[in-house]
Amino acid sequence: MELKKDAALEEAVAAITDNIIKDYDNDRDIDRLDFYASVDRSAIEDIVHKLRRIIYPGYYRDRAYYIYNARNNVAALIEDVMYRLHQQISTVLKYGAAPDAAIEEEARRITLEFFRRIPLIREYLDTDLAATLDGDPAAQSKDEIIFAYPGILAITVYRLAHQLYELKVPLIPRIMTEYAHTLTGIDIHPGATIGKHFFIDHGTGIVIGETTHIGHHVKIYQGVTLGALSTRAGQRLRGKQRHPTIEDRVTIYSGASIFGGETVIGHDSVIGSNAFITFSVKPNSRISIKNQELDYGEGDPAVFDQALKKD
Amino acid sequence: MELKKDAALEEAVAAITDNIIKDYDNDRDIDRLDFYASVDRSAIEDIVHKLRRIIYPGYYRDRAYYIYNARNNVAALIEDVMYRLHQQISTVLKYGAAPDAAIEEEARRITLEFFRRIPLIREYLDTDLAATLDGDPAAQSKDEIIFAYPGILAITVYRLAHQLYELKVPLIPRIMTEYAHTLTGIDIHPGATIGKHFFIDHGTGIVIGETTHIGHHVKIYQGVTLGALSTRAGQRLRGKQRHPTIEDRVTIYSGASIFGGETVIGHDSVIGSNAFITFSVKPNSRISIKNQELDYGEGDPAVFDQALKKD
Amino acid sequence: MELKKDAALEEAVAAITDNIIKDYDNDRDIDRLDFYASVDRSAIEDIVHKLRRIIYPGYYRDRAYYIYNARNNVAALIEDVMYRLHQQISTVLKYGAAPDAAIEEEARRITLEFFRRIPLIREYLDTDLAATLDGDPAAQSKDEIIFAYPGILAITVYRLAHQLYELKVPLIPRIMTEYAHTLTGIDIHPGATIGKHFFIDHGTGIVIGETTHIGHHVKIYQGVTLGALSTRAGQRLRGKQRHPTIEDRVTIYSGASIFGGETVIGHDSVIGSNAFITFSVKPNSRISIKNQELDYGEGDPAVFDQALKKD
Repeated sequence: MELKKDAALEEAVAAITDNIIKDYDNDRDIDRLDFYASVDRSAIEDIVHKLRRIIYPGYYRDRAYYIYNARNNVAALIEDVMYRLHQQISTVLKYGAAPDAAIEEEARRITLEFFRRIPLIREYLDTDLAATLDGDPAAQSKDEIIFAYPGILAITVYRLAHQLYELKVPLIPRIMTEYAHTLTGIDIHPGATIGKHFFIDHGTGIVIGETTHIGHHVKIYQGVTLGALSTRAGQRLRGKQRHPTIEDRVTIYSGASIFGGETVIGHDSVIGSNAFITFSVKPNSRISIKNQELDYGEGDPAVFDQALKKD
Repeated sequence: MELKKDAALEEAVAAITDNIIKDYDNDRDIDRLDFYASVDRSAIEDIVHKLRRIIYPGYYRDRAYYIYNARNNVAALIEDVMYRLHQQISTVLKYGAAPDAAIEEEARRITLEFFRRIPLIREYLDTDLAATLDGDPAAQSKDEIIFAYPGILAITVYRLAHQLYELKVPLIPRIMTEYAHTLTGIDIHPGATIGKHFFIDHGTGIVIGETTHIGHHVKIYQGVTLGALSTRAGQRLRGKQRHPTIEDRVTIYSGASIFGGETVIGHDSVIGSNAFITFSVKPNSRISIKNQELDYGEGDPAVFDQALKKD
Repeated sequence: MELKKDAALEEAVAAITDNIIKDYDNDRDIDRLDFYASVDRSAIEDIVHKLRRIIYPGYYRDRAYYIYNARNNVAALIEDVMYRLHQQISTVLKYGAAPDAAIEEEARRITLEFFRRIPLIREYLDTDLAATLDGDPAAQSKDEIIFAYPGILAITVYRLAHQLYELKVPLIPRIMTEYAHTLTGIDIHPGATIGKHFFIDHGTGIVIGETTHIGHHVKIYQGVTLGALSTRAGQRLRGKQRHPTIEDRVTIYSGASIFGGETVIGHDSVIGSNAFITFSVKPNSRISIKNQELDYGEGDPAVFDQALKKD
């Protein structure tokens, strides 16, 4: 738009701009003309990618780090991410009211502690990788899983974010898991606790709520919700257990929904596709929906049960 | 591939290239060797990001605009986006048959009118933000919602795109909402009408069709479809109301499906998870699926109802 | 973090870094300090985008290629993608054990053969575009579909990846379809076979497994799973048909799940929303779930069937 072409247009643009800027003075929640204290979402996405390179050394190469001594490379990378993460943590801690020096010190303490936990995170992820290879007949290799599987990506980001959540960092853990949500369609709240050997297949549509507890060797398929029964009470429910407990070696097939903070799925159970569960289930259960009542239109249902000959 | 290594390879490559280019002459729908009139999807994505910075001043900082006078900053940003949006609208209006001068003029009129509506869009989004904070016990702050929540992102892009849809801009509104769909898994057609205080939680898998009407204070969870009963008639259904009407203060829980242009969900109703609704529902209804008939395998269903002791 | 500020901090950082690097020696599956042989995911994403420009000439313009002779442009683009794809295929073939010269030769053979099939891929995609325009009353134009529809994007990437899968290229086909999965929420395994005139609407949450067979003129809506009945046997199931066969002119509405390698949906059938099918269905069937048993709380269900007057 050649905005300066005529006086009338110039005037219209000026009036519109003034109007938008004046609108910022309505003191709405969506207004914070405080450019300097803002956390930087793209910086956090960059941190996530660099942490993945530290977690899976060799898998995610980056020409900028393509140097001969891989170990020096990793050491430089670790120091770089430490610096950037410290910056972001300092920024979000300023949302509180502590004096600046205390914030810097606290951000430093958290950053170091987070990096101390990297070997622990790797220990868990190594078991998740094994569970994925073991659980999916379509998986050709570990490389395919790390390079291509959304489940392992979502779990990796969750395990990183969960440690920051445990260290009481505001905002950043959720930005991390929502970034993974964008990439994978898998929504794991950083507050959930998840044991070793966790396997997610396909994954799109999975929701795992903030107060969910998941044991070891659990498998979850696409579209599964581990949710709250009702959130009508809104903010008054903060901090209460609203989401279910899934014990060891449970498998939950696609589209199943399990709701409620009192709900416990006992160990070694299998929950079938599309089951809707709002009650506790004892160990070793096999639960599936009974064949749905279907309407066959004008057809003859009897013949449907005979397997059709394939061409 | 060292393509020039030998004559045989060179010949093979030339033959393959010729074959592909010859294939463009089959006059298929997928061919339009008209590079110059094309709308630019990445330019539209850039416009979406800049509009978000105008809508939420201070939240989305960009170093390029990181200057001292935030208001000058915003004014420059508004003029920049006006220019870019005008370019894209001119391009898509050329899909019609009007002479060039008229198109430029019409694109200018639409661009200015769109920017006049920004304060209105902000007024709506401010209520959506309040509804999200109120509705989600996991939300820690407004900042977390604006930085991280896919629901608020999808609603923001929808509200922008809807105004362009109302102004009869082809193509661009849909490209905008599909961009949000890519980022969030939430598919809101720009033609839908949606009232104030709209809250989407988690969101992956939500589909809201073109002719849906949604009132104020409505809450929708992941996997909800507001869809058409049948689209077998295809293009003959264009312009007809094919999607439901959701009245004020309705809550629709995860995985529920509501179909049909005649279907009205009366105000203050609650539709439970996974309910499948193809009929109208009077105000103040509480509808949930009756406990599914489940097959407990060899287990004893009676004991399942006793809550298991958690460790 | 001013890492060099004091000796204590320097020591802490050094200890943490050493600890992470030492952890790489635990010989875990997630460790491969082999930077040089790794396939490059971003290079493959770049190849996907360039192939789309070859498939849909004119739709995806790129300033770098914005030159006057569009045909020269395309020829240059084809040669560029050939070179890059050859590089990636050489890399993944090295995961096997053949000597280097044989690998280069085989990668060259595959690359050329893949490009020979581009006109065939385009022939299929042209029918998918027609099916989409025909099937969706909200579609305004072919341009809108190619620029904005996630279904056509997912099908395009699948059709490209499937040819590489047929040519026995490891890893790359899956990285391609998972990239489309990230962008669209639609998860089509490159091993599936899919006929002409394939239409996907909305698409988020669709899963189409590795051994699925789909005929011509099939329509699939969001949230549909074409899956395996059980994958408890894990890797022992590799190569067996675990996913269903969908014959010609079948429509599968949103949220329906069809499981099992023995399951055949006969031609011209319609599977309704949310139906759960684990058995074969004869041709011309119309299957829908019977109205769910719903719990209407304190309401009077009788009145719900009367259509409410809309405002």
